[in-house]
Amino acid sequence: MIRLTLFLTLLLGIPAALADPIDRVEPPFWWAGMHNPHVQLMIHGDRIAQWSVSLEHPQVAVTDVHRVESENYLFVDLDVRSTFQGGTVTLQFAHENGENFQHDYAFHTRRKDSADRNGFNTTDAIYLITPDRFANGDSSNDTLPELKEAANRDSSVGRHGGDLAGMIQHLDYIADMGFTAIWPTPMLENDQPEYSYHGYSITDFYRVDPRFGDNEDYRQLSLQGKAKGVGLIQDMILNHIGSGHWWMDDLPTDDWLNFQDEFVPTTHYRTSVQDPYAADIDKQEFANGWFVKSMPDLNQRNPLVANYLIQNSLWWIEYADLYGIRTDTYSYSDKDFLTEWTRRIMAEYPTFNIVGEEWSTNPNVVSYWQRGKDNKDGYVSYLPSVMDFPMYDALRTALTEDEAWNQGLIRVYETLADDNLYADPMSLVIFAENHDTSRLYSLIDEDVERFNIAMTLLATMRGTPQFFYGSEVLATSPKTRDDGAVRSDFPGGWAGDTRNGFTGEGLTDTQRSAQEYLRQLLNWRQEQEAIHHGDLLHYAPHDGVYVFVRYTEEQRILVAINHTGETRQLSNERYAQAINGHLSGTDALSGETLSLDNDLTLEPMSALILELH
Amino acid sequence: MIRLTLFLTLLLGIPAALADPIDRVEPPFWWAGMHNPHVQLMIHGDRIAQWSVSLEHPQVAVTDVHRVESENYLFVDLDVRSTFQGGTVTLQFAHENGENFQHDYAFHTRRKDSADRNGFNTTDAIYLITPDRFANGDSSNDTLPELKEAANRDSSVGRHGGDLAGMIQHLDYIADMGFTAIWPTPMLENDQPEYSYHGYSITDFYRVDPRFGDNEDYRQLSLQGKAKGVGLIQDMILNHIGSGHWWMDDLPTDDWLNFQDEFVPTTHYRTSVQDPYAADIDKQEFANGWFVKSMPDLNQRNPLVANYLIQNSLWWIEYADLYGIRTDTYSYSDKDFLTEWTRRIMAEYPTFNIVGEEWSTNPNVVSYWQRGKDNKDGYVSYLPSVMDFPMYDALRTALTEDEAWNQGLIRVYETLADDNLYADPMSLVIFAENHDTSRLYSLIDEDVERFNIAMTLLATMRGTPQFFYGSEVLATSPKTRDDGAVRSDFPGGWAGDTRNGFTGEGLTDTQRSAQEYLRQLLNWRQEQEAIHHGDLLHYAPHDGVYVFVRYTEEQRILVAINHTGETRQLSNERYAQAINGHLSGTDALSGETLSLDNDLTLEPMSALILELH
Repeated sequence: MIRLTLFLTLLLGIPAALADPIDRVEPPFWWAGMHNPHVQLMIHGDRIAQWSVSLEHPQVAVTDVHRVESENYLFVDLDVRSTFQGGTVTLQFAHENGENFQHDYAFHTRRKDSADRNGFNTTDAIYLITPDRFANGDSSNDTLPELKEAANRDSSVGRHGGDLAGMIQHLDYIADMGFTAIWPTPMLENDQPEYSYHGYSITDFYRVDPRFGDNEDYRQLSLQGKAKGVGLIQDMILNHIGSGHWWMDDLPTDDWLNFQDEFVPTTHYRTSVQDPYAADIDKQEFANGWFVKSMPDLNQRNPLVANYLIQNSLWWIEYADLYGIRTDTYSYSDKDFLTEWTRRIMAEYPTFNIVGEEWSTNPNVVSYWQRGKDNKDGYVSYLPSVMDFPMYDALRTALTEDEAWNQGLIRVYETLADDNLYADPMSLVIFAENHDTSRLYSLIDEDVERFNIAMTLLATMRGTPQFFYGSEVLATSPKTRDDGAVRSDFPGGWAGDTRNGFTGEGLTDTQRSAQEYLRQLLNWRQEQEAIHHGDLLHYAPHDGVYVFVRYTEEQRILVAINHTGETRQLSNERYAQAINGHLSGTDALSGETLSLDNDLTLEPMSALILELH
Repeated sequence: MIRLTLFLTLLLGIPAALADPIDRVEPPFWWAGMHNPHVQLMIHGDRIAQWSVSLEHPQVAVTDVHRVESENYLFVDLDVRSTFQGGTVTLQFAHENGENFQHDYAFHTRRKDSADRNGFNTTDAIYLITPDRFANGDSSNDTLPELKEAANRDSSVGRHGGDLAGMIQHLDYIADMGFTAIWPTPMLENDQPEYSYHGYSITDFYRVDPRFGDNEDYRQLSLQGKAKGVGLIQDMILNHIGSGHWWMDDLPTDDWLNFQDEFVPTTHYRTSVQDPYAADIDKQEFANGWFVKSMPDLNQRNPLVANYLIQNSLWWIEYADLYGIRTDTYSYSDKDFLTEWTRRIMAEYPTFNIVGEEWSTNPNVVSYWQRGKDNKDGYVSYLPSVMDFPMYDALRTALTEDEAWNQGLIRVYETLADDNLYADPMSLVIFAENHDTSRLYSLIDEDVERFNIAMTLLATMRGTPQFFYGSEVLATSPKTRDDGAVRSDFPGGWAGDTRNGFTGEGLTDTQRSAQEYLRQLLNWRQEQEAIHHGDLLHYAPHDGVYVFVRYTEEQRILVAINHTGETRQLSNERYAQAINGHLSGTDALSGETLSLDNDLTLEPMSALILELH
């Protein structure tokens, strides 16, 4: 073929249009009008590095071309003028032997006000979903021949068939429950031979896993959710890829991965990041070590890797109209890269939101990553939010304990007392469980009263609450971590299910009442300015009762948790600062008006939410 | 008598010199040449408030006189010119009925360079002593008729007779062991009916308890100690007094005590001090509540109380030539008062040292109090050091555990990683036990190898180490807190003791070897610049081995702890950054030279200190 072209070129004296050897260009398209005028294309194709690239366009120019160890890659830097309105540009490829070809690249138009989008915030309640285990809306995509792992609902670690169609079908249920955002665990292609259901081994950064649907289905989840008041948060993984990623057969550079030549596991010693005394090897082994052999660790110190990941994140925000990002294993990535990744995303979308996962119960460690923290080592982050793992730990431990001076809800109280460590504690994402933990309901011995206390705390405490799918119908799990079992199928998500959490059919009275409790709570929460933006004042637990108020100039909401098996009286003298002269209040859930002339009665093991007036 | 004087006055036409009704003036004397030119005298005497006060002196003037609710007090403000060289001034007291009397007040001369004294620091090793339980040097003062509680050595909570004479007699032992400072628990008068041995219920702020000796004996302990290289740290209590304090029969003001009319216990909820959300009542109950009924809580928001306490502290520093202060129950005092107390002490003695006790294992709570911390609430402290309770907890827990990724020495490692929270972590006082905790040796099941590891860590880690009397001869106690038993008599401190820790007589081989280990360690430590002022670099525990180096430009000391029951090899590749190209090292305790060409062998359950060269 090449010889023939060469022959034709020589014969005819004009460049021949050759067949295009390119198999991938990533990002597959881009947008005009981005804040950052640069975009770097990763072009993959057989010996593509042997070609030169040029572009004749009044508003888009090639500014640089990077060749790397593998000659099957070209990294092409484009500069886009701000006046460019979008459209297709044509890249010209030429070989020194005189051959050439063209490749079109599209710049789309951004949606109106895309840059000004809000991210999720304290007005929201987030619903965390394991997509494979939520609802199987389309059984035809459960097993696909092109992908290695087939469905196997009998295995707790196999694929069960949940998908985008299922999630879209149940957006009304989600909205009705009062959730205003969903965080599905990762949905991009995981073409791994096993454990692919969880999504954390991405094999293609630009493709939704076909067993969930396609990219357009994912975009529809976002758009249709948004129309119902449910924003989409994408779970992004910057630290690693799946061992089945297409790069693995043809790594662009010798330093594309950390420990590229030898598997070294991460130590998980995350304190090394800010430890003033840490040895270099500990910093390296923590950040550069791999989670497991099936998750090669990306070297984000390589600017090509860094840029690739940053553009990928921007691409999904813009393409799927995202409401936020949850970042997996946040601190395991290179810290300077994380500064740049957050800086560039927040530069494009100043009021967007990103929450990082830093699984430490030490608020000194967690708070390090949040935007605005005055870190002693000078580290700067642009990350708006972090997952509040210290509170997660406090809450779960507290609810398994009897009240005493050093246990029970004092843990929640003391965790809040550490909020001075955070630059912005009000923006933390709070939760009592997630896809990596045992189910709270099981942990507290299936005590629904304590469970409702937890839900009330999450719905009224500072921060943005995150709930876990299935918990509203009291899903159970072993008490110790068992990922496959924790990520159990939502009842009613599969044809033939005898119990149905979406309709209530077949649920026990206890399940129904818990679900109704949360539904009421979250729907009520949507309208409460003092919960969304109010200050917090709280009291040390006293006789097993924990009291706090959320308040603004206009609204004052008192929450009283009786974490004992006995009736308690709430002294209006002791809590005078909280009550602040109000004479009565409305029980947020029952609607009953309660007088504050006398001490309030708190039922055993209960939570009272009182809107003071 | 008054009538007679009146008669004489009328008769003779000149003021008569009346008998002086004053029973106390505090401070009993003061010094010329202090940084602060003001001193406030608390004068107590029968209806003293009815008298006016004046002073005719070219360099000392009465600037104000404060009368309070009890007319048996006068607070007299004096202003002292910087040119005053000291001497006695005469206060003139006059009654409106014409009577008058004189009272002399002495200003002493300060010792040369008193203001420039150094406080204890990282070059020191502190020996904590319970004076009643250390050595009975003078049995004639064991029981004194003027004081309520008699000696009773049969009771673990009774007085055992230890005293200043005993401590002075054993200064050579203390110095020989390598201790360079002593911290005796409080030695001021505790004229309480019971539990007076511990000293934390002061009944006279200006008098050493006569059962220990007198003020001059205390000064001699300091001066003779200093001559032997052992400085004296006074244990000061600002928060409370003993219920037998002489004030209690005649409180100066209605607000001299917190909760003066009604006993309210402290909640111990110390997080309320910096909690951004804390209710006022929690702050008040924590700081103002009493420890126990026998310890009335001082209201330092009353400026007369505050000034009294500040002057008392300065008085003891100057009088007893102190090397430092340890402050009891630090955070329980009014926080603004603590700012002023530390500010004024450090203004008088800029290179002095004070260490505060904040018994919390949360470094966010502890670090709040240290000088230089940029607290989020703007709180300013001038306290140079705090007791490192987080490390205390980590160390003790670690040594009772087998090594694993989440237990054992990782706790020590992670506690150090939190040092970013402190303004000055190098100045923390570190310890593994004190008078309020069980004995470490008992806690770790009398495992002397682990015990020596603890001693090595304390002697080489950052900070100033503090040891507890008796531990060097492996004193034991119940594993759970039992104050009386923990504060056991030092063997050899009493006539007739069959075992003698001072001479070694009757000790077991294990006791003798532990004592020798610590003696060698601390004597070695005295000369190590890298331990005193060096930086720290440490490694996450690996295979049960914890390695760190202390280093300056000139010196590099490597410490390797093998906290397992097996021999371990120290990879000179893994620890290359610590070894930093050195070729060999000297074992600090054996003197043996070890080559670093090959991996070092670490004996099971051992600590190696290597001076690299």
